[in-house]
Amino acid sequence: MLRTHYIGELRQPLGGSVRITGWVERVKEVGRLRFIWIRDKTGMAQVTVSKENKALFEKTADLRLHDFILVTGKLAEKPIAKVGVEIIPTEVKVLSKAETPLPIDVTGHIKSILSTRLDWRPIDLRNPKNAAILKIQATLVEGMQEYLNSNGFLQVFTPCIIGAGSEGGAELFEIDYFGQKAYLRQDPQLHRQLLMVAGLDKIYDLGPNWRAEPSHTPRHLCEYRACAVELSYIEDERDVMKVEEELVVAGIKKVVEKCEDELRLLEKEVEVPKTPFPVLTFPEIYDILEDMGKKIPYGEDLDREAEKLLAKYVKEKYDHDFFFIDRFPYRVKPFYVMKIDGTEWARSIDLIYKGLELSSGGQREHRYERLVQQIKEKGL
Amino acid sequence: MLRTHYIGELRQPLGGSVRITGWVERVKEVGRLRFIWIRDKTGMAQVTVSKENKALFEKTADLRLHDFILVTGKLAEKPIAKVGVEIIPTEVKVLSKAETPLPIDVTGHIKSILSTRLDWRPIDLRNPKNAAILKIQATLVEGMQEYLNSNGFLQVFTPCIIGAGSEGGAELFEIDYFGQKAYLRQDPQLHRQLLMVAGLDKIYDLGPNWRAEPSHTPRHLCEYRACAVELSYIEDERDVMKVEEELVVAGIKKVVEKCEDELRLLEKEVEVPKTPFPVLTFPEIYDILEDMGKKIPYGEDLDREAEKLLAKYVKEKYDHDFFFIDRFPYRVKPFYVMKIDGTEWARSIDLIYKGLELSSGGQREHRYERLVQQIKEKGL
Repeated sequence: MLRTHYIGELRQPLGGSVRITGWVERVKEVGRLRFIWIRDKTGMAQVTVSKENKALFEKTADLRLHDFILVTGKLAEKPIAKVGVEIIPTEVKVLSKAETPLPIDVTGHIKSILSTRLDWRPIDLRNPKNAAILKIQATLVEGMQEYLNSNGFLQVFTPCIIGAGSEGGAELFEIDYFGQKAYLRQDPQLHRQLLMVAGLDKIYDLGPNWRAEPSHTPRHLCEYRACAVELSYIEDERDVMKVEEELVVAGIKKVVEKCEDELRLLEKEVEVPKTPFPVLTFPEIYDILEDMGKKIPYGEDLDREAEKLLAKYVKEKYDHDFFFIDRFPYRVKPFYVMKIDGTEWARSIDLIYKGLELSSGGQREHRYERLVQQIKEKGL
Repeated sequence: MLRTHYIGELRQPLGGSVRITGWVERVKEVGRLRFIWIRDKTGMAQVTVSKENKALFEKTADLRLHDFILVTGKLAEKPIAKVGVEIIPTEVKVLSKAETPLPIDVTGHIKSILSTRLDWRPIDLRNPKNAAILKIQATLVEGMQEYLNSNGFLQVFTPCIIGAGSEGGAELFEIDYFGQKAYLRQDPQLHRQLLMVAGLDKIYDLGPNWRAEPSHTPRHLCEYRACAVELSYIEDERDVMKVEEELVVAGIKKVVEKCEDELRLLEKEVEVPKTPFPVLTFPEIYDILEDMGKKIPYGEDLDREAEKLLAKYVKEKYDHDFFFIDRFPYRVKPFYVMKIDGTEWARSIDLIYKGLELSSGGQREHRYERLVQQIKEKGL
């Protein structure tokens, strides 16, 4: 590698020469000194060039914002740099020149509108706050995968191109599959279930899903990744809730452990949630909502406002950001969910975080006769 | 959970009652005893029902192959079962009845043709040999991800729907994207590179890719997963080779550690490969091939047969199943690869395993002026 160290690894005492790489974040001249701030993904260092080093001082005269450079030098013995790390260079090499001026201000001091930022997404991601989000995302996934892998869940990779929609609605992206119509999956549900039939018992698929919904809201995404988990031989939906809870905790725990700097940068405080998560069940949910001034007819589904109200209720009563909704009305759910005998409720759950649905799940009906009966009842 | 243990976890002394779940693999009566073999993904147990337990003997009389059952009982104190684990049941409950006869023989004694097996894939996967392949695949990925995560590579999730092809050729699946033409990616190459521009420095994307190639050969797949790695600030292509080598070793090491049973079942011996992997370079490769009786014109690309011959050469000379091919002819490579100054060779590599290409990689040209020049030279 061209570098010997990431900037974040530079600490005194580090004898001998070091080489770092990154982009120029700022250049400033004070008296006989030129200060070059250089950043890589781990941090920022100051490179101090003295006029006495005539060749290098001339060579670095036309350094511009976000030129990519390679700096060879020694750590200053008595650093005076505010950024903490100071390097006295013996060589500065430009690996790639930047356009001047840059299309957006990556420091974020001068705000750009979202569409401009997206046009220049790779430059926008050099802002450490934006890169931090990707780091946190990856760490969350890492924690979840570690939990799943070490608890007997097999990672599988199921097909993305399917012959028919797996959910109601027409929100499917259509593909020309060698002259035949095919679709991008909305969810790997069917393949997950087939792997249960195969006896694989506990699996997960961490893959993309698509919804052709022409909507611009925080609840709509054309392409998104989901951690789709399936497990067999459950007693009832509470076994699923336990896995979801442990999965969420494992992910957040990893973020709290590994992303301290990123969370500080984003000014976000994240705590590992207490377990067990609170559970609200139907039909009591109708009463809770009515007490809060929201009347939803008995047997009807919740709307967005109701989810938010319930989140408020849980926050006040249990001081918790997560909660489960359990035993949804069977009539608003698909035919394959398990109905609780002699009632109108289903073993169907949602996990809500700060008022937003994180997942839907529950126990599936596995008895063939019941499935056939439920398909008929739903008029399918 | 319905079960207290996986069958693989059953070991004497386990006092008290245990509950296991799985499918019936065999039923056999000998004298006053009925032996029910039950299998889950971890192993097989024998459930021994005595005629003296009249109720249970009657209840288990119509058990059929691959009924899913729940067995409650105790481990036999002096097991006589060949399969090792023997259970004296107090209760047997059928969770789901199987069709009789089964559409394929899952033991594999009676072979089914591939298309029939694929029609009944979930049943086919109950054959432990077939399930073992999925376990090995997941373990390989786990080992690779552990290596990447613990070596500073960030897992990213880049878009699958793109506006134009990323490689030559017309092998693209077309999508109707809200009335516009879009495509499934062949490779997340462009997005990976943009993340390098973002300074993220070391990333990987473990996602699906598609090729609309209407071919049936072991080298063609319409949908496949790739571990797409990108890293910045490399000295040259040898830094990439080092990462590939470590990645392959980490994956295989994990398989050797965790999949002993599966490898034994498949009668495969896998060893962690020695490092460094042998490297063959152009133009010497032409001489090696010529010595083996295969003449490829100077400056031309290798064909499938040449790859196989080189694999044979490496196996004989270095006793190694893996090797790199380095410094491909620049003229057969795309414009964005780095040409070695003053030569006709590129910093372009392939990793070959047992004669089959596992990956293509190398150093990309990052200098703007060179890129423009190379685009012109290639007539693009």
